[in-house]
Amino acid sequence: METTVRNKQVILKHYINGFPEESDLMIVTAPDAMEVKVKPGSSTILVKNLFLSCDPYMGTFMREPDSGSSEVAVETLSLLDAFIPGKVTTLHTQTNTWFQLAIVVNAFVQPIAGVGVSEVIDSDDPCFAKGDFVWGIVDWEEYSTVNSFGRFKIDISINVPLSYYTGILSVTGLTAYAGFFEICSPKKGEAVFVSAAAGAVGQLVGQFAKLMGCYVVGSAGSKQKVDLLLNKFGFDDAFNYKEEPDLDAALKRSLPQGIDIYFENVGGKMLDSVLMNMKVHGRIAVCGMISQYHIETQEGIKNLPVVVYKRIKMQGFLAFDFIDRFPKYLEFVLPYLNERKLVYVEDIVEGVENGPAALVGLFHGQNIGKQVLKIA
Amino acid sequence: METTVRNKQVILKHYINGFPEESDLMIVTAPDAMEVKVKPGSSTILVKNLFLSCDPYMGTFMREPDSGSSEVAVETLSLLDAFIPGKVTTLHTQTNTWFQLAIVVNAFVQPIAGVGVSEVIDSDDPCFAKGDFVWGIVDWEEYSTVNSFGRFKIDISINVPLSYYTGILSVTGLTAYAGFFEICSPKKGEAVFVSAAAGAVGQLVGQFAKLMGCYVVGSAGSKQKVDLLLNKFGFDDAFNYKEEPDLDAALKRSLPQGIDIYFENVGGKMLDSVLMNMKVHGRIAVCGMISQYHIETQEGIKNLPVVVYKRIKMQGFLAFDFIDRFPKYLEFVLPYLNERKLVYVEDIVEGVENGPAALVGLFHGQNIGKQVLKIA
Repeated sequence: METTVRNKQVILKHYINGFPEESDLMIVTAPDAMEVKVKPGSSTILVKNLFLSCDPYMGTFMREPDSGSSEVAVETLSLLDAFIPGKVTTLHTQTNTWFQLAIVVNAFVQPIAGVGVSEVIDSDDPCFAKGDFVWGIVDWEEYSTVNSFGRFKIDISINVPLSYYTGILSVTGLTAYAGFFEICSPKKGEAVFVSAAAGAVGQLVGQFAKLMGCYVVGSAGSKQKVDLLLNKFGFDDAFNYKEEPDLDAALKRSLPQGIDIYFENVGGKMLDSVLMNMKVHGRIAVCGMISQYHIETQEGIKNLPVVVYKRIKMQGFLAFDFIDRFPKYLEFVLPYLNERKLVYVEDIVEGVENGPAALVGLFHGQNIGKQVLKIA
Repeated sequence: METTVRNKQVILKHYINGFPEESDLMIVTAPDAMEVKVKPGSSTILVKNLFLSCDPYMGTFMREPDSGSSEVAVETLSLLDAFIPGKVTTLHTQTNTWFQLAIVVNAFVQPIAGVGVSEVIDSDDPCFAKGDFVWGIVDWEEYSTVNSFGRFKIDISINVPLSYYTGILSVTGLTAYAGFFEICSPKKGEAVFVSAAAGAVGQLVGQFAKLMGCYVVGSAGSKQKVDLLLNKFGFDDAFNYKEEPDLDAALKRSLPQGIDIYFENVGGKMLDSVLMNMKVHGRIAVCGMISQYHIETQEGIKNLPVVVYKRIKMQGFLAFDFIDRFPKYLEFVLPYLNERKLVYVEDIVEGVENGPAALVGLFHGQNIGKQVLKIA
């Protein structure tokens, strides 16, 4: 084990306006080496990051927080803030001493951040020991100094890939669980529609719904994804929205009796068509609206009066609001995983330098299943 | 008391496309007299209608049910169906016998219907006696033969105007109560915004919110209505939306800390502006979207992604879904009415022949307070 490392980080170059692009992010290697141990008395934990989660909400964090647009990501998450663009050029002029570098690093080189799985390398926190595996919010870098707040120890006796703790066994899983069960209160036999159904959250919602005895239809953006829905995740029906000139007709074909529950990941035209096909007392869990996050002019939703006529509940949510349900979620999901009654598809890209491409690919539907970045 | 009457009715002439107009409705006087008593063994009740409620949802019932638009009012109400246009011309050719007339009346001259207060004239139902006052769904006509389903007996020992049973003491009141308390779960000190705040429901929501210790702001469409909000209903602030070139600015002026609860009556631009001013975990009770019911092209709502970022709950509802709460509502509201801690403003128009104008006026904001039609 080396005693010093030069940390590689992924930083935001500048705030974005439209869709995130690879060139909006950059890889920085710290000019000086860092010691691979924690400061005594700091109560901190030094971790080596193994897997990082790529999530659509991260795109909204690349926008300027006070831009006055509808996409104000500030004040929405308790554990995460909008990303701060790094001004890396200033590094080269101010790195004469270690002390100055530290200031510069804090002020200007803030990596982007998200859910990650890490190995504890050194710890000054009595609850965590060298060799422990943990998941929680980490910066996108090879090594991070973190604290225990919002950090979960991984039980390695559970025989699942460590990467699952970026997804099905962390925030992604809780998102599917809380959105489907807590917001939508599903009943056996109800008709469920899931958009972005082959994605990290969608594949779980669909399978949870099948376990509940619902009739489940999903939409996705390629033939390969639709095949996954039908043949791997057990959806009752599925369609490729890119090949449907009329989404309303596609929904009426797959769900002629209407929709009781819509798990919303995309927004825009899909939402407008779904509204027309909701049943009375339908429920819509609004997990995301990825189609609207990075376009200049939002597509107006025209069918909202249906919410009155059909007494529909539409509720936005974030898994962080349901973090107290996490132990209950694990109790629910682990037996199904162990009995192979749930499958989970990941799309793993390796190497921190491939992080920007992996993250940006989400916004073009390039991932099949949960997009994960393997760092080490 | 006469033993026969020639019943006057308000019927829909034809399905409408745009805004309801007076000329879409007509007054019909039955060509033959009807006996003012019920058929023995029929279990029916003959009532004389006294007050009829004019409500915005009735406009949506004037559209063709299967027009494929977003405004499908069918299957939404358990007690009421979309109105059926009357083909009155056929009456004159087929009224040779009483029997034929009865068929024609049933088939073609179906008055519009809504909540009304009536006096029992004759009854074959043991639960109702001559001289009782009742409220429930009735046809817009002078005399109706009804049954007991959904019919509430009025306790005349409660010292309030009978017309209140078209409003504060019936569906209108329950709408305000269920929407505000059941959907929005208000807490003391929260910021509440009500649109169409001087209307039948809005004035009650504002006053309920004040009783809960909330900070309450309302919008309305005239100076006179804004004065009512401030000086009669006790709103903390109010504005005339027609004089605000920038609704977002008006909301930020009145509610600089944002909105916890929005009681939605209007839709369109107001909703879009409100969304931008909602606080995290805000709640929107969608009671109506009157601005959108009768326009050809719905105004698209562009700020819906806020529902995710701010984890907003938005729920459409109808009072009929909460009818089991009605006794609880009366227990809540009657003491406030008796102690004059609640006021209720009605806009009463007299005469069945003025029904079309009263109903149509709702869609132009001509009513101040609850619009009631006094028949007898």
